[in-house]
Amino acid sequence: MDRRCKDSFERQGLMGLFGASLIEAADGRAVIDVPYGSDLTQQHGYFHAGVVSSIADTASGYAAFSIMPDDASVLTVEFKINLLNPAAGELLRAEAAVRKGGRTLVVVSTTVSAIKDGKVTPCAEFLGTMIVLRNTSDMVARN
Amino acid sequence: MDRRCKDSFERQGLMGLFGASLIEAADGRAVIDVPYGSDLTQQHGYFHAGVVSSIADTASGYAAFSIMPDDASVLTVEFKINLLNPAAGELLRAEAAVRKGGRTLVVVSTTVSAIKDGKVTPCAEFLGTMIVLRNTSDMVARN
Amino acid sequence: MDRRCKDSFERQGLMGLFGASLIEAADGRAVIDVPYGSDLTQQHGYFHAGVVSSIADTASGYAAFSIMPDDASVLTVEFKINLLNPAAGELLRAEAAVRKGGRTLVVVSTTVSAIKDGKVTPCAEFLGTMIVLRNTSDMVARN
Amino acid sequence: MDRRCKDSFERQGLMGLFGASLIEAADGRAVIDVPYGSDLTQQHGYFHAGVVSSIADTASGYAAFSIMPDDASVLTVEFKINLLNPAAGELLRAEAAVRKGGRTLVVVSTTVSAIKDGKVTPCAEFLGTMIVLRNTSDMVARN
Repeated sequence: MDRRCKDSFERQGLMGLFGASLIEAADGRAVIDVPYGSDLTQQHGYFHAGVVSSIADTASGYAAFSIMPDDASVLTVEFKINLLNPAAGELLRAEAAVRKGGRTLVVVSTTVSAIKDGKVTPCAEFLGTMIVLRNTSDMVARN
Repeated sequence: MDRRCKDSFERQGLMGLFGASLIEAADGRAVIDVPYGSDLTQQHGYFHAGVVSSIADTASGYAAFSIMPDDASVLTVEFKINLLNPAAGELLRAEAAVRKGGRTLVVVSTTVSAIKDGKVTPCAEFLGTMIVLRNTSDMVARN
Repeated sequence: MDRRCKDSFERQGLMGLFGASLIEAADGRAVIDVPYGSDLTQQHGYFHAGVVSSIADTASGYAAFSIMPDDASVLTVEFKINLLNPAAGELLRAEAAVRKGGRTLVVVSTTVSAIKDGKVTPCAEFLGTMIVLRNTSDMVARN
Repeated sequence: MDRRCKDSFERQGLMGLFGASLIEAADGRAVIDVPYGSDLTQQHGYFHAGVVSSIADTASGYAAFSIMPDDASVLTVEFKINLLNPAAGELLRAEAAVRKGGRTLVVVSTTVSAIKDGKVTPCAEFLGTMIVLRNTSDMVARN
């Protein structure tokens, strides 16, 4: 586990609110889990697409951050997500992998799956772009 | 305000968790507000991109739903979001407008803005696709 | 090779203009090749992003079409493409694979690679949505 | 009309092949027209989505380039396009406008319309990201 990713993740209020865990973040890969809760739902009781995209975005950010230089910080430029199946299950998991790590931009693809009674169903495909901010610390207070 | 949109919004656990309000939903338009909270943040203390995309997606869904037939339900097929500026402010606002309302698919574009000391700064552009599910109620319990 | 895909491909004027070939189309997969030509370029002499996205879109459409019922036709709903590397080489190849084949929508992911002196370099990642049009023939004259 | 945009456009082999014209490019805006031809079609005889996305991408690139410093060059990072209506008509037009011009990245939104018997129908919405390459000339020969 990349130490900077873990520290950064722990400063994300939203991930705490979701009860999400950073399971892995190293070598261009990252995994985030979030257990089901009734306050994470859309109107039909499934995981909200916002939760699906939040953990996909966050996992993608740390997959990218894990291969960046020490003096860099990471920001999301943009992403696209296709929702394939209802996100129904007791656990939601985002698995991110860097597809292209450039000097300035990093492209990441991520799959989000819902796990129900041990059965894993892909529920979203994500493709996004992260930017490397050089000479900026990831530890910046809100101004 | 479209009654079905309001009822559906109130069943979304995630919108309650965020403290979000559906300000408007009618005639292919919808607006959602969410006040700042330290549990809605990314690592630098700004609104998390996940919150930005969650309310963009939800506003888009209700903009689409507001023009659908009575026997229909709405689901997000996919969306794309560009993050233009840090989402820094005391309030985040998503404003959605239908671009094309088809029989099966509805395309929506949405702008998310951060409001700080009364100053409005666009922080994200969203373009997404919603699907019309005929003969299905929006009021479905989780199975 | 799916016969309907081949027939449909041959009616695409643009693919003829590009000198593109449908190499494969069956079982949710499709491959299209296009040899380099100076009239397929952007301003630096590489394959134009428009050629890259055109063959990605077309391969995706036929990957989707190959799993559709006999009475169906296919249209692109939307797609997103990330350009990873300059598309430099003597051949451009798009390889499409269905990620989720629904009754109404089919999600496809496609990789485009440039081949230069036998070396294959991925130059684009594509993620798109196709729609199944039932009871419509793919053989429709322009009205 | 921005001179650099015009020169760069004229070096794009693909735009020549399409018979496309750069109508405008200045101050963060650009317009490209392409007349109908049977070699620009998909299988039903409409303009191919590849032509639609090619001119949307190119117009977006020049809208972005028009606000870049003299020593800069432009490349497409990624884009997303929704196809709203069949691109049926005697003329296809892409109109691009910069939404956010940053030091490194420029976000552009573009509408493509088909013009048939004088009637203008929007057929696609495009949202994309361009990158500013500093200290590189736009006039680079293919290597």
